[in-house]
Amino acid sequence: MGLVVQKYGGSSVADAEGIKRVAKRIVDAKKNGHQVVVVVSAMGDTTDELIDLAGQVSPIPSGREFDMLLTAGERISMALLAMAIKNLGHEAQSFTGSQAGVITDSVHNKARIIDVTPGRIRTALDEGNIAIVAGFQGVSQDKKDITTLGRGGSDTTAVALAAALDAEVCEIYTDVDGVFTADPRVVKKAKKIEWISFEDMLELAASGSKVLLHRCVEYARRYNIPIHVRSSFSGLQGTWVSNEPTGDSKVEQAIISGVAHDTSEAKITVVGVPDKPGEAAAIFRAVADAEINIDMIVQNVSAASTGLTDISFTLPKAEGRKAIDALEKAKSAIGFDSLRYDDQIGKISLVGAGMKTNPGVTADFFRALSDAGVNIELISTSEIRISVVTRADDVNEAVRAVHTAFGLDSDSDEAVVYGGTGR
Amino acid sequence: MGLVVQKYGGSSVADAEGIKRVAKRIVDAKKNGHQVVVVVSAMGDTTDELIDLAGQVSPIPSGREFDMLLTAGERISMALLAMAIKNLGHEAQSFTGSQAGVITDSVHNKARIIDVTPGRIRTALDEGNIAIVAGFQGVSQDKKDITTLGRGGSDTTAVALAAALDAEVCEIYTDVDGVFTADPRVVKKAKKIEWISFEDMLELAASGSKVLLHRCVEYARRYNIPIHVRSSFSGLQGTWVSNEPTGDSKVEQAIISGVAHDTSEAKITVVGVPDKPGEAAAIFRAVADAEINIDMIVQNVSAASTGLTDISFTLPKAEGRKAIDALEKAKSAIGFDSLRYDDQIGKISLVGAGMKTNPGVTADFFRALSDAGVNIELISTSEIRISVVTRADDVNEAVRAVHTAFGLDSDSDEAVVYGGTGR
Repeated sequence: MGLVVQKYGGSSVADAEGIKRVAKRIVDAKKNGHQVVVVVSAMGDTTDELIDLAGQVSPIPSGREFDMLLTAGERISMALLAMAIKNLGHEAQSFTGSQAGVITDSVHNKARIIDVTPGRIRTALDEGNIAIVAGFQGVSQDKKDITTLGRGGSDTTAVALAAALDAEVCEIYTDVDGVFTADPRVVKKAKKIEWISFEDMLELAASGSKVLLHRCVEYARRYNIPIHVRSSFSGLQGTWVSNEPTGDSKVEQAIISGVAHDTSEAKITVVGVPDKPGEAAAIFRAVADAEINIDMIVQNVSAASTGLTDISFTLPKAEGRKAIDALEKAKSAIGFDSLRYDDQIGKISLVGAGMKTNPGVTADFFRALSDAGVNIELISTSEIRISVVTRADDVNEAVRAVHTAFGLDSDSDEAVVYGGTGR
Repeated sequence: MGLVVQKYGGSSVADAEGIKRVAKRIVDAKKNGHQVVVVVSAMGDTTDELIDLAGQVSPIPSGREFDMLLTAGERISMALLAMAIKNLGHEAQSFTGSQAGVITDSVHNKARIIDVTPGRIRTALDEGNIAIVAGFQGVSQDKKDITTLGRGGSDTTAVALAAALDAEVCEIYTDVDGVFTADPRVVKKAKKIEWISFEDMLELAASGSKVLLHRCVEYARRYNIPIHVRSSFSGLQGTWVSNEPTGDSKVEQAIISGVAHDTSEAKITVVGVPDKPGEAAAIFRAVADAEINIDMIVQNVSAASTGLTDISFTLPKAEGRKAIDALEKAKSAIGFDSLRYDDQIGKISLVGAGMKTNPGVTADFFRALSDAGVNIELISTSEIRISVVTRADDVNEAVRAVHTAFGLDSDSDEAVVYGGTGR
């Protein structure tokens, strides 16, 4: 029995009852002979309440102080969780991100972990304690200021600690039973995935699946830490994410892992761009300088008569305004006609390692969309993913159609079989 | 213009409006040319809410985790205050007790400051920042665990920082206008004291005055840091506490500084103690071993016929149960008859350096009590204080009678004059 890292999200520790339920589960793991490190998020709505308070004193809170404020949330949940565990007769100690050795860069509100030095955690474990660590936070290497890791940061804390402590597994406890073949709110027949490779999980995360964030999976893959995503409300096995099937899951990798969708993006089309070298570079330099992450890019075929072309790209809606401003500012330098902004788009992605060896997948995907009457606006592919942009209104119908077409529905006898092995 | 340390209590920063009001006051001090360090308590009821949460998960929360929990309170208020100041166009940075270099012993929930190493505060000030520091908290020297200083700890943080930074003054902002000659809730004609010596303030604090705690005044005296106690709601001068009159106050020390009262104590009488050497020592050893602080002690004259005597002492009501248990356990070893517990007592104290040179003070004090029909149960004196224990029901009347008798009422033309100078 080795060391396990468990991570509990805010919904699992939303109130005193939740904290006591989680404490019992942690103690069970300890009783089973494991050394246990627990990463915990802030209770339920705490973070939102703190953000609201900040808004009341300042319209643009300083990054450093905002991080100082938000980290109070985990401080509360971790201390309460340690108390609840001690009340069950087991030793526990809580640690801030800084005390746990989570060293980050200095980018407040979305810092990146650059090192983990868990000396105090190791000592606490060796003394027989369960170690409780504040998720989502760290301390900056240069200024020793408190930082936060941004959305989903507690998952990353858990994986980073698991890597630094050479854990057997990083268990991510949440309010769903695992990773599903599609969002169960959209596809009622979505199935829980028993095992998925890091690569497929990365593509799902990049394509809109919310269960695990891209950065966290990336970290786990780099250090080869198996992740077990499961519910803190049930005792069920969840989804294993790893290089090879591990734990109780002996399953083969499916040809298709799942269907993801994303309606959080917008599309900007730069109209009337001179079709000459350097134009696209100028456009995306302007956008990159504004620190905007773009997703898909498509350049239309140039109309021979005008020598002008259109370039479209997608980006998070939240950054739309900033991108438009940046491009307008560079308009004369770049020399385009106009900008079109469209936030009524959606993206549907099919993810699976089986695509590499099954050329029929792409054709079947387009056929399914076509049969459902869904019009395709942009296409982008990777080795193991194919994504299309459609009207936002079409997204749910498109996801269901694709899910059914690839035999992923839970009452299908089995998944669609291609000539290849799918591995 | 030098460095000032300002401390704001929880009632001054109870909500966003309070925080913004306090931020303006802090910025005013900065505009006046001061370097400003601010010590802040948790907002309004935050600490009580956190204590309530702790009670929901554990009946006896661990000291270490309880401190971790409670320190979230100041983290919230200090970050919000820094944001509010920055919103007014001034630079501010918040620091936890640990970051500010407040080093304590390891006694959780009532740690003592053993060193202050404010390197980061000094740097922040030198860079033009207003430094906001979490009150009430520190970090233990040996284990590097988060500690809290106990009740009134934020005042002590402020004075300790003022000493370490060689501040001109430590301003304690609160919801009253200063230190009064008696509790204004009991004595309507109580007057604000313009200046009071450390010694008299120490005696008032030890005698039940709640405005400043004993430990904080002791610290200020040791390092000779003038304290200015004033309201955060008005711009009025408050009360200066120092070795010699400072600031705008040019007043002479009064013969009598004020009348304090305390109804938080109980009296234990050990009945039928053999009147021989070592008996009192045995009793108070038993009480001390239970870590109980006692206040007044009186041994009655032994009755010649029995060779037995009674010993009475007072102690905080909250520790009554523990003291009784400790004494019962030692009963056979000590050899007393029985214990009497009385929590319906009150203490009235008259404090003033003038007592040293004015022997009439004591007589006048007893006369005032006698005229008011108040029966005296115990008496204890120091060079500059005289205290009596009475029935709890008599306390308010006794305080008013003494206040009037010594000419302290606000509509008196002047204070009572004795032969001495009062200095």
